[in-house]
Amino acid sequence: MSRITDIYRRIEEVDRPEVFVTLRPCGDVEADHRELAAGGPLAGIVLAVKDNVDVAGLPTTAACPGYAYVASVDAPVVAALRAAGAVVIGKTNLDQFATGLVGTRSPYGAVRDSRRADRISGGSSSGSAVAVALGLADIAIGTDTAGSGRVPAGLQGIVGIKPTLGVVSTDGVVPACASYDTVTVFAVDLNMADRAMAVMASAAGPRPFGSATRLAAPEQPTVVVPAELPELDDAWREAFGTAVARAEAAGLRIKTVDLAPFLDAAKLLYEDALVAERHDAVGSFIDDAEPSAGIDPTVAGIISGAARFSAVELLAARRRLVELRDEAMAQWGDADALLVPTAPMHPSLADVAADPIGVNSRLGTYTNFCNLFDLCGLAVPAGEVDEADGTRAQFGITFLGRAHEDAVVADLSRRFLSGPIDAVPAAWPESGGAPAIELAVFGAHMRGGPLTHELTARGARWSEEIRTAPSYRLVALDTTPAKPGLVRDPEHGQAIEGEVWTLSPTALGEFLAALPAPMMLGSVELSDGRWVVGFGCAADAAERGEALDRIRW
Amino acid sequence: MSRITDIYRRIEEVDRPEVFVTLRPCGDVEADHRELAAGGPLAGIVLAVKDNVDVAGLPTTAACPGYAYVASVDAPVVAALRAAGAVVIGKTNLDQFATGLVGTRSPYGAVRDSRRADRISGGSSSGSAVAVALGLADIAIGTDTAGSGRVPAGLQGIVGIKPTLGVVSTDGVVPACASYDTVTVFAVDLNMADRAMAVMASAAGPRPFGSATRLAAPEQPTVVVPAELPELDDAWREAFGTAVARAEAAGLRIKTVDLAPFLDAAKLLYEDALVAERHDAVGSFIDDAEPSAGIDPTVAGIISGAARFSAVELLAARRRLVELRDEAMAQWGDADALLVPTAPMHPSLADVAADPIGVNSRLGTYTNFCNLFDLCGLAVPAGEVDEADGTRAQFGITFLGRAHEDAVVADLSRRFLSGPIDAVPAAWPESGGAPAIELAVFGAHMRGGPLTHELTARGARWSEEIRTAPSYRLVALDTTPAKPGLVRDPEHGQAIEGEVWTLSPTALGEFLAALPAPMMLGSVELSDGRWVVGFGCAADAAERGEALDRIRW
Repeated sequence: MSRITDIYRRIEEVDRPEVFVTLRPCGDVEADHRELAAGGPLAGIVLAVKDNVDVAGLPTTAACPGYAYVASVDAPVVAALRAAGAVVIGKTNLDQFATGLVGTRSPYGAVRDSRRADRISGGSSSGSAVAVALGLADIAIGTDTAGSGRVPAGLQGIVGIKPTLGVVSTDGVVPACASYDTVTVFAVDLNMADRAMAVMASAAGPRPFGSATRLAAPEQPTVVVPAELPELDDAWREAFGTAVARAEAAGLRIKTVDLAPFLDAAKLLYEDALVAERHDAVGSFIDDAEPSAGIDPTVAGIISGAARFSAVELLAARRRLVELRDEAMAQWGDADALLVPTAPMHPSLADVAADPIGVNSRLGTYTNFCNLFDLCGLAVPAGEVDEADGTRAQFGITFLGRAHEDAVVADLSRRFLSGPIDAVPAAWPESGGAPAIELAVFGAHMRGGPLTHELTARGARWSEEIRTAPSYRLVALDTTPAKPGLVRDPEHGQAIEGEVWTLSPTALGEFLAALPAPMMLGSVELSDGRWVVGFGCAADAAERGEALDRIRW
Repeated sequence: MSRITDIYRRIEEVDRPEVFVTLRPCGDVEADHRELAAGGPLAGIVLAVKDNVDVAGLPTTAACPGYAYVASVDAPVVAALRAAGAVVIGKTNLDQFATGLVGTRSPYGAVRDSRRADRISGGSSSGSAVAVALGLADIAIGTDTAGSGRVPAGLQGIVGIKPTLGVVSTDGVVPACASYDTVTVFAVDLNMADRAMAVMASAAGPRPFGSATRLAAPEQPTVVVPAELPELDDAWREAFGTAVARAEAAGLRIKTVDLAPFLDAAKLLYEDALVAERHDAVGSFIDDAEPSAGIDPTVAGIISGAARFSAVELLAARRRLVELRDEAMAQWGDADALLVPTAPMHPSLADVAADPIGVNSRLGTYTNFCNLFDLCGLAVPAGEVDEADGTRAQFGITFLGRAHEDAVVADLSRRFLSGPIDAVPAAWPESGGAPAIELAVFGAHMRGGPLTHELTARGARWSEEIRTAPSYRLVALDTTPAKPGLVRDPEHGQAIEGEVWTLSPTALGEFLAALPAPMMLGSVELSDGRWVVGFGCAADAAERGEALDRIRW
């Protein structure tokens, strides 16, 4: 049976018509099979796309019927995922124009929580998150300006990756606040989300990873957590405490941070001139729209109201934002990430109806500041919370990292989920990710060795165990302690065991600059025929060294 | 006789009271001697400071008496120059609030051209440029938002360096348009300006050079020049043609570019919402000022008018700017720089009085777009022009480079002034400049060698001829062609001649990744005892190689 047919049965079964705005026509089984049979790293993966992102031939509504247009080409992120084998199942509902964190602001219906139908889904990527949580798609594209790719991941108990601004193309996406918009991805598990984001990042945006990008968290990462936890009740607070303890058990060093400057920044987006970006995005459409356009009254109020600010007020707000960021990042210090609850509570549909603006604003307590401060974020599930009414809420946490440290937060998230692990799969491959160079090491730089820290402190990522071509031997160098020196010896050599790490070009240059004689770096042949940068030693030292039958430190 | 006394005599002699707003009190000879006797790379250099930059204990007026305040601390750039030995002679006149390119918009008097007193100085860094041109200071600090550090350099026949935005601190500087303001330096010759800028850059701003910054122009640089030359009369056009021919003779490959998107961007600063930044900077002061504040009516009109734009208009203008930049940079292609006339003509005081806005706008034809497009620039003298009235104007050109390519434009400027040269002094030292690592090379990578391009194509800068410690020998490797391999041999070795190049950490990492076996890189001891990264070779290749008594390709 086709995976698509399977998904259709599931869609029928769960009966949540509000999740999709447009569904792929069911029944063209041959076309389904053809598309699903195509190869690629995401072959056969079923993809839902938030309805503010273009899919060729389908309407893009941004959850506003009057705004809808039929996209002529896929947005680059969609094209990248399809080229990798993903199959689009449909376009998902959202808070109109991605304005909201609740999931209720849509004429296509309020999207309900996947587990408790009286609760909200979270938004604005409401349909995408619920589609993944209910198994109506394997992965789903969302967008995130103030938390839209994280809050619904948290409430739906799934993973959401919000990359660094500008890393992934936002072409073909209806803007919300153009300066702060990102395309995100949801999946049930981190590895699937990570694979999808790697493909999405190959649709590179205007601000690719630089040549000094860290590829992994250090061996002993430090994570800051808020000293105070506003908006969390006791049960949610306890769940966060449990998550922090789990992070600590996984080897993350915990420090606290004053969240005040982070929280103050959010006000600039909601109450100050930064909101003008929303009017810049779709304001003229909303100002001129007929009642039949189906504009959500809360969304209309926010976006039309955003026109009232002057250019000078906007400049002042942006200056204030820079001040707050400087203050916040001083608090952050040299920590590798900030760990926060993804959402502070899980409201009901009735809560939102009673106070649409207030509930929305509180939901974004731990997400609003992220894009304003140019942070990347990764939301992961972290257990459940027993609620007062006897039901259980999904609890989620988010690791927030500095710009371009997407691989660091992915690494920390993986450690949180798996505990300390020796080898983690490479996060984003080079195609869409940060520039990386392979380095073969044979001695004290191998995992657990006394010099491993020289690699990990430079953001190097462990990649694989390798063997050289059978044409090398080791000598014990006259260093203290005696380091093993790799010498090429095609006649009498053998295959030597080692490891390959990847590191940024900058890190490799700096590693070389710090390398003491007689160690040298050159090109080493591996057993699979690859030649990679690897360790060797100076000829005079090799000559003096005694033969060594295995690596020792 | 003290250098200060000398300068004072010169100041009296030229009788240009409009150049300085505040002059260092004359006569405290002992203090002068003490200050001049201090060491540092700029010891004894006399410095004039534009009066919108703070010098501790002196008023900062920004050429507006009512705005004046006495600075309590030096701006970081001033502090850096003083710490390096420079002595402040005084604060110089400017177009009020750095609004203008003419030099006439000041209640402290219109600053006249250093050579022809009926002409303008150019501005807004008018007093600084004229002080340097008349020998009233060795170097002078200016600022530049739309050409204020370049137009007066061009008209005064001196050098002006406008660094990349954010590289040099703008703390302690009265903002003009905060997003586009830079601190600049003037000097008669490029090396002096370059030395001063190196020191100023040690007062690092929020956007330091990255680890992939090119440290020099490539061997065969390409420079684009405008296909059309608006605002230049025949004589000025001819002077530019001569300059382009001189650049070509100096080894720069010339291509043409359509300047239209560059020119369109300038309109956003003068006629559209980008000007709101001027109101953000000092608008509330101007709006509330008494008539006694001494506000220039042209400046007041521009800045007060700048309040009229809405936030949405500003956002639209910024989006338009990004579109124009994309278009312009597509035109620019992979060229190393854009070469333009610095100013298109040299107006008289009467010309400006007759049309203060129009003349000012035309003066900025080749400068206005630079900071908006995030380019760096270096203005150098390029001869003289015979004017219709029988006098001669100074003609200047500017090399504009991509953000962070300050060393590239410095390199091109030097080649323009000196013709092709083997060795150029390092532009900005590591302290204030781009991260750099030294690499010792011995064979085909040396200047003129068949592999030099592998270094220069990566932005490497030739640094010096060196000799190793007397403990190395060369072997001829079994490569095709036979490369020389450096082998350490403390007993029978000798000093081997080579070269040191500097390159960015990224370039070193990438160079290593591309290095074929049996070449290797490690640590090499030089004759002066330094250990630097340098070439060696794999032990097996060294063993097979025959002795080589000198390097050959």
